[in-house]
Amino acid sequence: MQRYNLCFLGFGNVGRALARLFGTKAAELAQLYGIDCRITGVATRRLGWLWNAEGFKLETLIAGNMDQANIQQARDLGEWLEKAQPAAVLETTSLNVETGQPAINYLRASLQAGAHAITANKGAVVYGYEELTDLARRVGKRFLFESTVLDSAPVFSLFRECLPAVRLRGFDGVFNSTTNVILEAMETGRTFAEGVKAAQELGVTETDPSHDVEGWDSTVKVCALATVLMKTSVRPSDVRREGIRALDAQTLRQARAEGRPFKLVSRAKVAADGSVSASVRPEQLSATDPLSCVRGTSLAVHFELDMMPGLTIMSHRPNLQSTAYGLLADFINAIRGS
Amino acid sequence: MQRYNLCFLGFGNVGRALARLFGTKAAELAQLYGIDCRITGVATRRLGWLWNAEGFKLETLIAGNMDQANIQQARDLGEWLEKAQPAAVLETTSLNVETGQPAINYLRASLQAGAHAITANKGAVVYGYEELTDLARRVGKRFLFESTVLDSAPVFSLFRECLPAVRLRGFDGVFNSTTNVILEAMETGRTFAEGVKAAQELGVTETDPSHDVEGWDSTVKVCALATVLMKTSVRPSDVRREGIRALDAQTLRQARAEGRPFKLVSRAKVAADGSVSASVRPEQLSATDPLSCVRGTSLAVHFELDMMPGLTIMSHRPNLQSTAYGLLADFINAIRGS
Repeated sequence: MQRYNLCFLGFGNVGRALARLFGTKAAELAQLYGIDCRITGVATRRLGWLWNAEGFKLETLIAGNMDQANIQQARDLGEWLEKAQPAAVLETTSLNVETGQPAINYLRASLQAGAHAITANKGAVVYGYEELTDLARRVGKRFLFESTVLDSAPVFSLFRECLPAVRLRGFDGVFNSTTNVILEAMETGRTFAEGVKAAQELGVTETDPSHDVEGWDSTVKVCALATVLMKTSVRPSDVRREGIRALDAQTLRQARAEGRPFKLVSRAKVAADGSVSASVRPEQLSATDPLSCVRGTSLAVHFELDMMPGLTIMSHRPNLQSTAYGLLADFINAIRGS
Repeated sequence: MQRYNLCFLGFGNVGRALARLFGTKAAELAQLYGIDCRITGVATRRLGWLWNAEGFKLETLIAGNMDQANIQQARDLGEWLEKAQPAAVLETTSLNVETGQPAINYLRASLQAGAHAITANKGAVVYGYEELTDLARRVGKRFLFESTVLDSAPVFSLFRECLPAVRLRGFDGVFNSTTNVILEAMETGRTFAEGVKAAQELGVTETDPSHDVEGWDSTVKVCALATVLMKTSVRPSDVRREGIRALDAQTLRQARAEGRPFKLVSRAKVAADGSVSASVRPEQLSATDPLSCVRGTSLAVHFELDMMPGLTIMSHRPNLQSTAYGLLADFINAIRGS
């Protein structure tokens, strides 16, 4: 058995779900991988840089009770890492669409402090993939981010481990739950506003749904996938982006009745010269397109490979636990050297 | 750069496609993994146990020309392995539904001779998984079989590498191209016989389609998946099996018109007591079932996991090259220690 200290940078819904997972999966982690974990650092904007070298009491931590013995406050990230001594930092701070900061700074510091850097932050991948991957290699640690696109359905680990020597020619996908729920609501006669409400009730969208509706969430995901899998830096400004606001209910209903529904499709393709073109826009799918099968909050990506005519991965009804699992899977893979 | 000898046991369509792949992917194998391969053994029932310590000339081998210099005939499997000195044996002999032989004997001998054992043979997995996996572990080699179920869309490697500490509760899938093509032909007004012909023309079925039509191919695949992923030996006699012959065209057409098509569904579930129940039978799918999206020769499997509500993997229009790629991916993973 080997003991590992964990630091949680960010402790919102996903962070708490992940902490819970480390509890419920403790026996399997021990039995299957000889892993014994304790959380020695939790940092949030509100609480600051909290640490406890002996490990936080998990139950009270998840309940939000920070009134535990031996919790100390570090003055900054640097001291926090130094005191908490993490084997891995699990980073779940808010997305910054323009710079990926401060997540990138956090992850860089974590690697430099000798910890694996594991994140759910798409921005860190889009703007920091090359730098953080190089740094990770140099310090002998891992920079992993499975939860960033399909909420834990494997895509990055899939290519890394299961598809060696394959060339990715293109992909298309449905990457945003909110817009899919809105479109399906309008297909059944409800209004756009009612669709937004339905998505909010399902817990997949923010109070201001613009980020999803204008296609920004999908755009950042396309950039993350293309940057990593096509080995070409693709930024949001490179993506031809169009949200769903212009679609009218009548058109959507008619399309669905024909079995050829509209979806907000994220797409990227490698041209003959190796350059990458990417778009996020409403598209009407053919009846046989695997993406036409995506329902409700589910997500999917379809890959076109030189070695396979087509490979589709679908993640059904992703929830906080499945998103948290992506981070846990990354942690296990970092530790066991995958 | 490291040099590896390869032995091909069986050299039919898949074997030749794989040999071709080692040629076309030679540059990537060298550049990405430092791998340099040569085929030093080819064995078929018709030709016997051929070997050439210097390596067969690839082009003429693929063309079926065995009239090359320095080809020698070993008297049996044992001498063949000893002379050809393989780092890996790529086994693509015919399926035996009842015993998995002689494939299991071939793979056992390969491992004992110090070679990785890589197969496309479902029977070897169903009847030999435990024994060959244990033996592989003891001799420090790998026993891998990605091509056996979804033709190369990762399922075994997916669980092994990308889904650590996950519990599989059940799966269902469409595992047979022939029956899917037949059912879709009948849905559009053609006869069963015309559907069989269409499947044969697509190259996915044997002259006698009974193996597919009676559900045997799907049954063996269910057994392979359940045995490995649910860690419980499931044999064909444990599977409740029903083929597609009883389905009439009218029923199929009506079902498709309602958007709720019939498919030959392969299913396995883990009960509360840990036992596994499995079936292969025609089922009418709901309109939102991801399997209802499977078209033509495509295959799919849907997993129900404790960590994810649902994960679907779809392999579109699998062909000889994609099946061969599964074996190549296994070889690369065996070599790089994944």
